[in-house]
Amino acid sequence: MTDDAPNPALLPAGLMDLLPPEAEREADLVEALMAAFAGHGYERVKPPLLEFEDSLLAGSGGAVAEQTFRLMDPVSQRMMGLRADTTPQVARIAATRLGQQARPLRLCYAGQVLRVRGTQLAPERQLPQTGIELIGSDAAEADAEVALVAAEALARAGVPSVSLDITLPTMAPTLLEAAGVPPALRQRLARALDRKDSAAATELAEQAGPLAAALPVLLAAAGPADGALAALSAADLPPAARAIADNAAAVIAAIRAREPGLRITLDPVEFRGFRYHVGVAFTLYGPGATGELARGGRYVSANDEPATGMSLYPDAVLRAARPAAPRPRVFLPLGTPPADASALRAQGYATVAALAPGDSPAALRCTHVLRDGAAQALSATPFSKDDV
Amino acid sequence: MTDDAPNPALLPAGLMDLLPPEAEREADLVEALMAAFAGHGYERVKPPLLEFEDSLLAGSGGAVAEQTFRLMDPVSQRMMGLRADTTPQVARIAATRLGQQARPLRLCYAGQVLRVRGTQLAPERQLPQTGIELIGSDAAEADAEVALVAAEALARAGVPSVSLDITLPTMAPTLLEAAGVPPALRQRLARALDRKDSAAATELAEQAGPLAAALPVLLAAAGPADGALAALSAADLPPAARAIADNAAAVIAAIRAREPGLRITLDPVEFRGFRYHVGVAFTLYGPGATGELARGGRYVSANDEPATGMSLYPDAVLRAARPAAPRPRVFLPLGTPPADASALRAQGYATVAALAPGDSPAALRCTHVLRDGAAQALSATPFSKDDV
Repeated sequence: MTDDAPNPALLPAGLMDLLPPEAEREADLVEALMAAFAGHGYERVKPPLLEFEDSLLAGSGGAVAEQTFRLMDPVSQRMMGLRADTTPQVARIAATRLGQQARPLRLCYAGQVLRVRGTQLAPERQLPQTGIELIGSDAAEADAEVALVAAEALARAGVPSVSLDITLPTMAPTLLEAAGVPPALRQRLARALDRKDSAAATELAEQAGPLAAALPVLLAAAGPADGALAALSAADLPPAARAIADNAAAVIAAIRAREPGLRITLDPVEFRGFRYHVGVAFTLYGPGATGELARGGRYVSANDEPATGMSLYPDAVLRAARPAAPRPRVFLPLGTPPADASALRAQGYATVAALAPGDSPAALRCTHVLRDGAAQALSATPFSKDDV
Repeated sequence: MTDDAPNPALLPAGLMDLLPPEAEREADLVEALMAAFAGHGYERVKPPLLEFEDSLLAGSGGAVAEQTFRLMDPVSQRMMGLRADTTPQVARIAATRLGQQARPLRLCYAGQVLRVRGTQLAPERQLPQTGIELIGSDAAEADAEVALVAAEALARAGVPSVSLDITLPTMAPTLLEAAGVPPALRQRLARALDRKDSAAATELAEQAGPLAAALPVLLAAAGPADGALAALSAADLPPAARAIADNAAAVIAAIRAREPGLRITLDPVEFRGFRYHVGVAFTLYGPGATGELARGGRYVSANDEPATGMSLYPDAVLRAARPAAPRPRVFLPLGTPPADASALRAQGYATVAALAPGDSPAALRCTHVLRDGAAQALSATPFSKDDV
């Protein structure tokens, strides 16, 4: 290679190859998540990676418009977008091709999403995304179901204990609106809430009048759900905010009724990151510092249908899940009878056939060799990361 | 909706939504194929959907350059392509990130490919593609392995009997070259072979001299492998063509040794559609008129490594495979104990929970209802295509 030739191994920033064994693990995780969704009656749909930008970016799709790759369709001469989120596509399918199907409609999906730019913390520009959408029900039971199905799916995918963080993205705006806070002050208050700056929020809420007084109280109430619900219940809330609080209590009660052991926190005035959510919004966290594994909540779908759903991020799940045992690999010497090999595969071994006299079990990273009709373990380390 | 608004259900030509139950069936087929590959020691890699066009279209990628969507990377200001074929990406991974791993290297992949334009017969512009690549072996055993693993994978995915069509894409060009046929005549002969026009091929071969005489003989020999091999063996071939014939015989013998029942045809002078193949090229057909399910064969990978592989098309497999039984759906009345529901899911049922008093088993397309702790079948048809 000359110095001028580009390095063929170089990929665009934020795009990467997944190698063995991670690629198989990620795929297995996705199928475990999808099997859990299917178990709860969520039926799989597969929208295309590309569609016309005006349908892709309609409704909730507008939230990711800036992150969407666009390209010209040479057939129609119209602009298409590469999806940055699958939820708007599922909403489109529910409203059009499945518009006549009875509600509530339960759909699930798995696929890749692409985005124009990564961030410093999340540089990836291609991400796997799986999720469920429950369309046509405004019941608190529906929100509880999607949160619980997502938590169960994560458990099946090998994440032993998750915690559910609930926020109410419309609570702070509703309180500020009801209190008639003027725009400039409202902006400062929103920023103080955003920074969780309790002192500033208290001072600004005093300037904003008595109806805003609940804001610093609710900011301080963020934490385990029971305490936060008690604070919400005791707070002096205008009717629109009271309805949001009552709904949150109903959702949490429905979750507790089915899964009393789930750890739930509630942050009533948090509103970041849920640009199209109404009612409750959910984030599921893995154990320790594994971070955000899923997010979702209630939204308004196409044709103003009530809907709720969760998106799960298999790349994050891969980092949080217990590592799977590597598949044992049996080396088959030249001339191994095909029936012996297929018996081993039926037992869960991968068989690695010699193709030439020089092929060696160790070089081919085999853990076993077929001898006398049976798989015999080799003593060497089966697989080293350094090989990759 | 006004007359001016675009129909939100409209997708670009050749791009479509896969709905229930097809989307789940396709995903299940892909995982069945991938499980078969993994059983034979093929390890999964997942290259990104987008990469720089100069690496994507290098080597065998050049064959799909015209079919590749291109877009500008706003980060690097370089052109990227959306892959139209995964094989060149796997070749890149094998040559770079897995360049130090022992050969033969067995890799597999599953994902989506996109192309700029469909054809009248194959209008799809997004296709699922799965496949295996066996890199670093020039043994006939390697070609036999990839053909047999692909056939076995199709069987596991529910395609009961496949037939393998073998072509030798370099045979006709090698004979024409060895015969010293002048370019104009060579082109007419190639066209006659391409059209399987035996009369024209015979007449043109006579004009081309004695070394071209094998061409019409080999054209006539196309058919079941044994007869075609006998014709190849009897033909008067120059050394370079003899080597191709001997290699084909060795590959077929290696296949027969492992799978004597596989139906094999051999067309020695067919060369269409395998733009980067050398040695043997394979096509696997399903039963009846289900068409081409997989194709592949020997090629030269990055860094001039010998390689052989197969690409499988899950959309075609979906059309050829036996339909799977639909998953039974059990309606759970309001207040069903969670343990009862999870017991049903463990038995393979999908559970569909009532969220409100009006939810009905029939409307939600349930086949069963939970009564007295057990799933009881409903008499109505479980699922009608007309619902979709």
